[in-house]
Amino acid sequence: MDRLSVKKILTEEIVDTDATVKGWLRSVRNSKKFSFLVLNDGSSQENLQIIVDEVLPNYAEVAGLLSGSAVAVTGRLVRGGGKVQSIEMQAKSVEIIGKTDETYPLQKKATSLEFLREQAHLRIRTNTFGAIMRVRHHLAMATHEFFSNRGFFYLNSPIISGVDAEGAGEMFTVSTLASDVTKSPKTKEGKLDFSRDYFGKETFLAVTGQLEGECYAMGLGAVYTFGPTFRSENSNTTRHLSEFWMIEPEVAFADLDEIAGLATDYIKYLIAYALEKAPKELEFLINREDATCEKNHMEILKHVRDSKFMRITYTEAMEILGKVDPAVKKFEYPTNWGDELQTEHERYLAEVHFKMPVIVTDYPKQFKAFYMKQNPDGKTVRAMDILVPGVGEIIGGSQREDDLAKLEARMDEMHMQKEPLWWYLDLRRFGSVPHAGFGLGFERALMYITGMNNIRDVIPFPRTPKNCDF
Amino acid sequence: MDRLSVKKILTEEIVDTDATVKGWLRSVRNSKKFSFLVLNDGSSQENLQIIVDEVLPNYAEVAGLLSGSAVAVTGRLVRGGGKVQSIEMQAKSVEIIGKTDETYPLQKKATSLEFLREQAHLRIRTNTFGAIMRVRHHLAMATHEFFSNRGFFYLNSPIISGVDAEGAGEMFTVSTLASDVTKSPKTKEGKLDFSRDYFGKETFLAVTGQLEGECYAMGLGAVYTFGPTFRSENSNTTRHLSEFWMIEPEVAFADLDEIAGLATDYIKYLIAYALEKAPKELEFLINREDATCEKNHMEILKHVRDSKFMRITYTEAMEILGKVDPAVKKFEYPTNWGDELQTEHERYLAEVHFKMPVIVTDYPKQFKAFYMKQNPDGKTVRAMDILVPGVGEIIGGSQREDDLAKLEARMDEMHMQKEPLWWYLDLRRFGSVPHAGFGLGFERALMYITGMNNIRDVIPFPRTPKNCDF
Repeated sequence: MDRLSVKKILTEEIVDTDATVKGWLRSVRNSKKFSFLVLNDGSSQENLQIIVDEVLPNYAEVAGLLSGSAVAVTGRLVRGGGKVQSIEMQAKSVEIIGKTDETYPLQKKATSLEFLREQAHLRIRTNTFGAIMRVRHHLAMATHEFFSNRGFFYLNSPIISGVDAEGAGEMFTVSTLASDVTKSPKTKEGKLDFSRDYFGKETFLAVTGQLEGECYAMGLGAVYTFGPTFRSENSNTTRHLSEFWMIEPEVAFADLDEIAGLATDYIKYLIAYALEKAPKELEFLINREDATCEKNHMEILKHVRDSKFMRITYTEAMEILGKVDPAVKKFEYPTNWGDELQTEHERYLAEVHFKMPVIVTDYPKQFKAFYMKQNPDGKTVRAMDILVPGVGEIIGGSQREDDLAKLEARMDEMHMQKEPLWWYLDLRRFGSVPHAGFGLGFERALMYITGMNNIRDVIPFPRTPKNCDF
Repeated sequence: MDRLSVKKILTEEIVDTDATVKGWLRSVRNSKKFSFLVLNDGSSQENLQIIVDEVLPNYAEVAGLLSGSAVAVTGRLVRGGGKVQSIEMQAKSVEIIGKTDETYPLQKKATSLEFLREQAHLRIRTNTFGAIMRVRHHLAMATHEFFSNRGFFYLNSPIISGVDAEGAGEMFTVSTLASDVTKSPKTKEGKLDFSRDYFGKETFLAVTGQLEGECYAMGLGAVYTFGPTFRSENSNTTRHLSEFWMIEPEVAFADLDEIAGLATDYIKYLIAYALEKAPKELEFLINREDATCEKNHMEILKHVRDSKFMRITYTEAMEILGKVDPAVKKFEYPTNWGDELQTEHERYLAEVHFKMPVIVTDYPKQFKAFYMKQNPDGKTVRAMDILVPGVGEIIGGSQREDDLAKLEARMDEMHMQKEPLWWYLDLRRFGSVPHAGFGLGFERALMYITGMNNIRDVIPFPRTPKNCDF
């Protein structure tokens, strides 16, 4: 008999028929003449209750199973006696596929998120991580749907990169010489001779796919990346990963205004998709005992989905922050024009002042990358950040400088080498057009939507300083 | 006026209305009183012809544009006088956005694929690469649709890995110590002290996401990865990349037979999707002057889409190969039981003997990875490869060994360290179930479907030995 998923049984309300299910036991409860198995097969947040009668030949063994055990059960699907519309299975046979024992790490119900990080290979078997990772799946699908439906093409930008585009110090080196440097070719100075390395030069893990995205937008019109990105900064916070996934759309003929609209639509699409496809997962996560998000998180998400995002300039942001009564909120960092917008400022704007996602545009050029389009004021660039309550920045973007002379002048001003980026400059030499794009940190978006407050809990196997297990 | 994409204009046959289009000129042809611009905006394989009358104020400048220039044109969409149903635009205004000059590398029409590899930042502006990358996009969408519709969850397996799972020598090291080894901590032996590296140990670029996929299949039931994968082997062939994208589904409660069926359905789905979504792209690629695929490639694809795949064991494959008359086909490598199936053998089976994709199963265990399920014969494992004409192997998969004792015995036999894989072994300790999966090389599938014969031409920015430009 072909097996049915729990999701199919419950959503299609399949009853009064025989079926086979296969999964893992979340719990086993024995009464006088019956054993109640709670089975989850990963397809759904919900479980299927199975009633096993003591007349079954292997009843004793089944009743003795520990949670985490794998079984295949064939039986009759019926309306349960308890809750309205609940469906359960009356077992006709139970095949024991894989047992657990007392050493199974997920025995106890109250298993902390910290403990589960050390069991990253098993934590997907819990309700919490099943919920998170199904939401993650749906948001990935939403991403492809959103961009594909708008005529964007998916671009796999390279992971190994020969370019240190955003300034040294935050990149991992990729090499075949490092494993045993005593045997590797060296320069006169005693450094590794990267000219004799695998790629014939020093190579890095990419921190962005944007530059290659710009190349492709100049041919395909509109593209987006969705791939892993890397930072070797030593940030041990709840919001930083060394390896994270990023979505980076890039649009030819677009200005900052258009890309800010695109980013807004995208965030709303993600929220709407999660609410539609994974409401039970979101409800479960929000109602966890140790949840730190607002109790009305679902209502907040619906409000954001249906509202206009605030849009202010950096200059306006600083004016708002400068007027905050220190008796109400005292900032650690200054808020004069030319100061950096710190996380405390970002969160104040999104969480306290606007209580909504906020798009801040036109930052002073000294904070921003060389490729951002310079405003006529000579001081600011056409950049934007989107700040959301609970997380802070989740999107950074800009219109790109499409004027070759201005771009080269800015690179000179910042003492950047132009030669390694000859190909990037070519985009401004040949058929240059206005274009713009942004990057969304996928895990930060997941934190925002699920209400989880540690980024290590929204990626399957987190990589952080001193931590690369599994 | 909002701009329309060329794709929208042509597929929805928008005529007798004014519109704006923006794109790059593929050619400019001047006659007595008109200039004919051929505009492509990346949305479609097809171009839009624009007729510019000499009465336009900037006619002289427009008529002098070189191909590759970017323009915005507003005008009237009309049925063309030439081909039936062709649509063209009568320009009312032409805004010149970005020019090119004589140094533009894509000037000539006859631009070889070899030359274009050196212009990977510009080659997407050609018909050939526009076609390839749109097909690539559609096959990526097909992949997500196929698995998501079947209840699989998308898994982002880690890229930086602490485990050398498949044996040393083919992995890139990831480190923050390598950039300047003169300043890095070393061991007594003079090697880099990876215990003081970023992750506190030596780390690598992952060669597979399978092991983590198995962890997640044990919770979510069925998962698939779709991400970059790395090999540092020194293979300079038309079929190898150092960085490539792989799709790796993993299914709990599945055996080899089920996974072979899944792989078959998946390949057919990819072909059907490409034929439906990108027929013009495929036609263009197949009819290129330097195309090396069969002239009837489209018919072959349709045949494969609609046919049953052949399924034979390794033992049967060797019997077939052993009977081949050396006068007809002389193999370089031997074909006795226990010999490896070489590319020449794989291609003979798929291209000459069966003229179809072939699934070969149950290989001798000495060729295959430690995790494959051992057959009762003690000699073979439940592995499969799928071989396709023109490319050879595009899928490798297996049922996994779910018996802890057998898996540990095989690891001992192969002199593998068990400790680093404690978490992988845990999957067999707690609720172990039969499970199986496979890996599809995305670029190899693209080669097969597009008929392109160099893998460097089906990925945006190829990485190969001594080559990491852009």
